Amino acid sequence: MYQPLISQLAHIELLTPRPAESVEFFTDVFGLERASEEGNSAFLRCWGDYFHHSLQITEAERPALGHIGWRSAGPDQLQIAVERLEASGLGEGWREPVQGHGAAYRYKGPSGHQHEIFWDVDRYEAPPELRSTFPTRPQRISNRSAAPRQLDHVTVASADPLGDSHWYRDTLGYRHTEYTVVADAPDVCFFSMVSTNEKSHDLGLSLDNSDVAGRLHHFAFWVDSVEDVLRVADVLLESGHAIEYGPGRHGHGEQTYLYFREPGGIRVEVNSGGYRIYQPDWEAVRWFPEQGSNTMYRNTRMPDSMMEAFPLDDGSVVAPEPELAGLANPWGEEGSG
Amino acid sequence: MYQPLISQLAHIELLTPRPAESVEFFTDVFGLERASEEGNSAFLRCWGDYFHHSLQITEAERPALGHIGWRSAGPDQLQIAVERLEASGLGEGWREPVQGHGAAYRYKGPSGHQHEIFWDVDRYEAPPELRSTFPTRPQRISNRSAAPRQLDHVTVASADPLGDSHWYRDTLGYRHTEYTVVADAPDVCFFSMVSTNEKSHDLGLSLDNSDVAGRLHHFAFWVDSVEDVLRVADVLLESGHAIEYGPGRHGHGEQTYLYFREPGGIRVEVNSGGYRIYQPDWEAVRWFPEQGSNTMYRNTRMPDSMMEAFPLDDGSVVAPEPELAGLANPWGEEGSG
Amino acid sequence: MYQPLISQLAHIELLTPRPAESVEFFTDVFGLERASEEGNSAFLRCWGDYFHHSLQITEAERPALGHIGWRSAGPDQLQIAVERLEASGLGEGWREPVQGHGAAYRYKGPSGHQHEIFWDVDRYEAPPELRSTFPTRPQRISNRSAAPRQLDHVTVASADPLGDSHWYRDTLGYRHTEYTVVADAPDVCFFSMVSTNEKSHDLGLSLDNSDVAGRLHHFAFWVDSVEDVLRVADVLLESGHAIEYGPGRHGHGEQTYLYFREPGGIRVEVNSGGYRIYQPDWEAVRWFPEQGSNTMYRNTRMPDSMMEAFPLDDGSVVAPEPELAGLANPWGEEGSG
Amino acid sequence: MYQPLISQLAHIELLTPRPAESVEFFTDVFGLERASEEGNSAFLRCWGDYFHHSLQITEAERPALGHIGWRSAGPDQLQIAVERLEASGLGEGWREPVQGHGAAYRYKGPSGHQHEIFWDVDRYEAPPELRSTFPTRPQRISNRSAAPRQLDHVTVASADPLGDSHWYRDTLGYRHTEYTVVADAPDVCFFSMVSTNEKSHDLGLSLDNSDVAGRLHHFAFWVDSVEDVLRVADVLLESGHAIEYGPGRHGHGEQTYLYFREPGGIRVEVNSGGYRIYQPDWEAVRWFPEQGSNTMYRNTRMPDSMMEAFPLDDGSVVAPEPELAGLANPWGEEGSG
Repeated sequence: MYQPLISQLAHIELLTPRPAESVEFFTDVFGLERASEEGNSAFLRCWGDYFHHSLQITEAERPALGHIGWRSAGPDQLQIAVERLEASGLGEGWREPVQGHGAAYRYKGPSGHQHEIFWDVDRYEAPPELRSTFPTRPQRISNRSAAPRQLDHVTVASADPLGDSHWYRDTLGYRHTEYTVVADAPDVCFFSMVSTNEKSHDLGLSLDNSDVAGRLHHFAFWVDSVEDVLRVADVLLESGHAIEYGPGRHGHGEQTYLYFREPGGIRVEVNSGGYRIYQPDWEAVRWFPEQGSNTMYRNTRMPDSMMEAFPLDDGSVVAPEPELAGLANPWGEEGSG
Repeated sequence: MYQPLISQLAHIELLTPRPAESVEFFTDVFGLERASEEGNSAFLRCWGDYFHHSLQITEAERPALGHIGWRSAGPDQLQIAVERLEASGLGEGWREPVQGHGAAYRYKGPSGHQHEIFWDVDRYEAPPELRSTFPTRPQRISNRSAAPRQLDHVTVASADPLGDSHWYRDTLGYRHTEYTVVADAPDVCFFSMVSTNEKSHDLGLSLDNSDVAGRLHHFAFWVDSVEDVLRVADVLLESGHAIEYGPGRHGHGEQTYLYFREPGGIRVEVNSGGYRIYQPDWEAVRWFPEQGSNTMYRNTRMPDSMMEAFPLDDGSVVAPEPELAGLANPWGEEGSG
Repeated sequence: MYQPLISQLAHIELLTPRPAESVEFFTDVFGLERASEEGNSAFLRCWGDYFHHSLQITEAERPALGHIGWRSAGPDQLQIAVERLEASGLGEGWREPVQGHGAAYRYKGPSGHQHEIFWDVDRYEAPPELRSTFPTRPQRISNRSAAPRQLDHVTVASADPLGDSHWYRDTLGYRHTEYTVVADAPDVCFFSMVSTNEKSHDLGLSLDNSDVAGRLHHFAFWVDSVEDVLRVADVLLESGHAIEYGPGRHGHGEQTYLYFREPGGIRVEVNSGGYRIYQPDWEAVRWFPEQGSNTMYRNTRMPDSMMEAFPLDDGSVVAPEPELAGLANPWGEEGSG
Repeated sequence: MYQPLISQLAHIELLTPRPAESVEFFTDVFGLERASEEGNSAFLRCWGDYFHHSLQITEAERPALGHIGWRSAGPDQLQIAVERLEASGLGEGWREPVQGHGAAYRYKGPSGHQHEIFWDVDRYEAPPELRSTFPTRPQRISNRSAAPRQLDHVTVASADPLGDSHWYRDTLGYRHTEYTVVADAPDVCFFSMVSTNEKSHDLGLSLDNSDVAGRLHHFAFWVDSVEDVLRVADVLLESGHAIEYGPGRHGHGEQTYLYFREPGGIRVEVNSGGYRIYQPDWEAVRWFPEQGSNTMYRNTRMPDSMMEAFPLDDGSVVAPEPELAGLANPWGEEGSG
C-alpha cells in the first residue's frame, strides 16, 4: 500500500560566509520577511509560507547546505519514517524542539545531505500591520515586486541520482517522477526528481562526480505566474545582480525557471508553472537530453557555471557572481557571415 | 492517522438533451478530443488528461449530472473506502469494468449525487499523429486556442454544504478547505469546498434550497495561465457563445474563473491559478462574503443565473444561453449624472 | 493632408482636498516617485516616464481636474496648434515656462476642460541610485509591485462626446477612434475616444448631463501585462483600498482595466494591452453597448458609482471609498433557488 | 519640421523554393488565413491585419526577400516620399495597382533591399463565417493557438546599419531608435533599428559583411502577450518544428522574442511587449552588447545560426532546420564538476 510519509518541504538552512549580505539580499532585494534571529542564524519567510520560516541563514566559512527540513504527513507517519530511517542506517537521532518546529529526527540522505523530519510546527501569525485581508493567507501579499510566494524545492548534488531517488522513494514514500539519461549511455543518469506533492519535484538530484558529500545545487522559490518570474529577473538586473541561467522553461516538470546567486555564492531559483501528477502509481519518466529535459525549447546549453555545486570541490569560497559567457560579441567571433 | 483514500477526480458524466450539439461544442469549439463512443455516450478528453477520458456525454431528457468518477489512492484505499461507504448506508454496490476503468463501486453523496470510485484505470495511449514530443505528456498540446489541459473540479448543489463537507472528509478522507457563511447568520453556510489534492477544491458544494436531489452546479477544466482563461473567453465570444460570469478571481482558492453554458444548458468553468495547501491538518477557513470569498475584488455580485443548478427545480429544460443583465444601457438607467 | 499636432499626453494636474494623503497614496502604495515640490503642488512620476513628471498633485477645496498637459509634435506643430486654438475662440494665451516644461499655451476644450500644449520639455535624469542598467530607460524599474510604467490616458466628462471628439480631431489632429451609441437612440453617444498614438485613446469623453463644466472622469496609468494589472489589484486590496470596477476588459480598445479611488476621491485606472491603430484614415468605429463596448465579456454592468465625475455636481466632496454593491449576499436576495 | 512619411509596414513578400510547404506551414501550423492566390504567389493574412494581406509567398529558386511594402502617411506624404526617393537615386518608378493595394512606387534601400510605398489600400472584409462580433476587429480571433495577431516588423542584412538607419530617417522620416556598437570598437555598429510607430522598430538592420545585396534576416509577427509567445513555441515544438532562438527578451525594445524557420529556410519571429516611444525628437540610444542589447538577461549568446541571412552568401539553398547546438550533453563536455 502506497503511503506518503512526508507532507511538504518546510525549510532550508543555508550556510554563507557573508551572512549580513545574504540576509540583506534576501530581504531588501528579493523581498522575504524577517521572522526572527537566534544565535548566528536569521530566519526568513515568504509572504505565503504558512510556517514560522522557510529559510534559515547561518554564518559559516563556506557556502553550503545546512540542512533540509521536511514535515511528515502526520504523527504516525513521522514514527514510521523514523523507524525506516533507523533501519536504513542513515538515521542520526532526535533533536530538541527549536525555533519554528517541534522535535525533529535528523538523518543523512544517501549522498550525505543533512535532513530532518518533524510533525509539530509553529504556524505563522502575522502582526497587525502584515495581516492579510483574505482569511486564507498567512500574511498580506508583499508590495515588493520580486517577492516570491513560498519555498518550492531543493536540488542537491548526488553521486547516483537514480539510486538516491529509489532510496527516497522506498524509505520515505516520495514519488519518483522523472529522470534524464545520456542517449548513448543510458545507464548514466544525470538528473532525477522525486516529489511529495503534485509537482514534478520538491527534491532534485543532479549528478556530482566530486568527492565532496552533501553538496547543494540550488533551492527554489515559487511565484504565481511566468510574468512574475520575468519581473524578478528585471528587478534583479536593475539591482546589479546577474542572472546565471534563464528565464526559460525546463522540459522536466514544464517549469519556468530563473537562476541567480545570492551574495554567499549559492544558486537560487525562482520558478512557476508546471504540470501536475496526481497518480500514486506514476511511473518515472525517462528523458534523453535531446528531448528537451533541461531546456524545453531544445536550443540552448546550460552555462558551465550551472555545474557548480556548494561547497566547491576545491574547497574555495565561490565568487558570488558567475562569469557571463561571451556577451562581448553576441554576434559570434567572426561577426556576420 | 490521516489517510487520503482518493487520489484524484477522474471523470464526469454529463447528461444532455442535445447530445450532438454538446459533443460538437466540446470538441470543435472548446477543443476536447474524442476518445470513443459507446451506446448513447461519447467519451471526450483534454490533451493533458492521463486517463482514457475525463468527460462522458450521455443523451438524456434533461441536463443533469450523470455521475462523478474518482480514482482511489490505491487498491487498499479502495477497499477501505468501500467499507466506509457501506457502513454509511450510502453505498450501492460494484459495477463491472467499463470503458476507461476497472470495476467501480457506486455510491450516493449525502445530497444525492451519484459517485463511483475505482482503482484500475486505462491510461491513454496517443495515436502517432497525436503523440507528444515530450515524454511526460499523454498527448501533444492542442493547437486549438480554447483547449484546456485537464479536468479540474466539480461543484454540486447541496442541502447542507457544511454537513456534506464533513461527510466527505470523514468518510473518504477529503480535506475540508474553505467555506462561506452569512455574516449575520453564521450558521448558514452558502458554499463549502473539499479537496483531495493541493488545490483548494476538486469538489465544491453550493447551498440548494430546492427539493431536487443530486443537482449539478458546474464542472471545471484547467488551463495553464490567466492569459489562457482570457483566450478561452475571447474564442467563446467570437464563436457566438455567451459568458455567464467572469473572467474574474474567486477569493476562495484565489482561482481565476470563467463560466459559460454548454449547448445542453449545463454550466462549465475554465479556471487557473490558486494557492496550494500541503498541510494534512489544515483547518477549514471560514469566509464572510464581504471578505471577497466569491469575488476577490469585492466589487461585483454574481448574476442571478449563477444560482441555477441542474436539473432545474421546476423540471424544465434550461435554455442554454443565460440572459445578459442590463447591458442595453451600461451607463445606468438614467444615464450620466 | 493629415497632420498630427500632438505627440503625446505629458501630464495631468489633479486637485485634491487631501494633498498629504493623496501624495502618500501615490508614492507609498501605488509606487510613483517624487520628482519635486513647489508651492502647494507635488510633482510625481512613473519609473518609465521620460519627462520630469506625469502627475502634479495640487491642494484644492474639492477633487477635480487641474489641467491636462500635451506635448506638441514639434515646434512648428505647436505654432499651428496655437493658431487653430486662437481661431476656435477657446485659446487662452501663453504661460511662462514652469517646472518640467517650457512655455505652454493654455486653452479650454469644448466641455470646459483646462488643457495646455508645449514643445520644450525637461527630460528626467535619474540620480545614480535610481539609474537603470538599460540605456533606454529613464529610471530603473520600480521594486514596488504596484508601480505602473507610465501615464496612459485621461477621460473627461463631456456634454457631447461625439461633437467634442470632432473638435479635438479637427482642431488638434487627434484621430477619432471609437464611440458608443444607444441602440434605440443612435443619436445619443455615451462615450467616445480620440487618440494621438497607436492606442485606442489617450483622451476619452464620457457623457455628462450635469451643468458642471470641465469635470474629470478618471485618468490612467499603464502596466506592461495583464498579470501586472492583477497584481496592482491585489496590492491595493491588501493595503485596504477598494476596487471600484474591474479587473476586466473593455471592448473599446480591448484594454484590460482596473478602477479605484485615490484618497481625494478621484477615480484612477490601471490598464494594459489593447489593439493598435496605425491607419491615418481610420474611420471611427461605432459600438452598441450590447456588443460589449464597455465590458468585452458582455455580462456585467458598471457599478453606478462609475457614473460619478469630479467635482460632483452637487458640489460636495466625494467620499474616497465607493460603496460596494450587494456583497453581503452574493448569492442573491433569496439565496439559492 | 519633423514629418513622418510612412504610417506602417503593410506586407512582406517572401521567396521560397518550397512554396507548397511554406504556405501549408503558415496556414495549418502557424495559423494565418489564406486571402487569395495569383500567379505563383499566395497571399496570407493574420486575423488582426486590417489590409488584404500581410504576407505574400512566392515561388523562387532560393529563399529570399521579395519586397517590403509600406503604406505612406497620406497621399501627400506619398508624393513627398517619391520626390525624395527620386532625388536619392534609389527610386525605381511606379507599378500598377496589384492585389491588395493601389499604385506603388518601387525603390531600393541603401543595402539593396526591394521596397515599395503606396497609399491606396484594400481593406479586408471578412466573409460571414470569419466576421468578428467586435466591430473593431477585421476578422474574428483565430481559434488556432499559434495564430499571431498581425505583422510586426522586418529585419534586413546591411553593410552599414548606422548609415542605412540615417538614410531611412533622412529620406523617409523613420525615427532612429536604438543601435549596438562593439565596446572596444565603437565605430562598428552591429545592429540598428528605425521605426515608423511607437515601438522600437518596424525595420531592423543587422550587420552583413557578405557581398550579397538585399538579404533578409527575419520578419516578425505580433502576439498579444508573453504567454502567447510561449504557446507558439510549444505548438511549434509539438508539431516537429525546431526553435532557433528564444523564447527570450531583447534589451533592444524590451521585446519578447521567438525565432524559428519556415520550410523554405527563412527565419520567422514571433514577438510581444516592449516599451513605447512617443517622442518625435527621441535621440537614438547606443548600446554595448554587455548591457544586454540582444539578450536582456545578459547570460546567453545567440546561436551561430542566427548570423545567417537569406539568400546564403554561398548561393546554396539553406536547410530549413537549424542545427541544435550541444544538447546531447547539456551538462557540459566533462559532466559534473
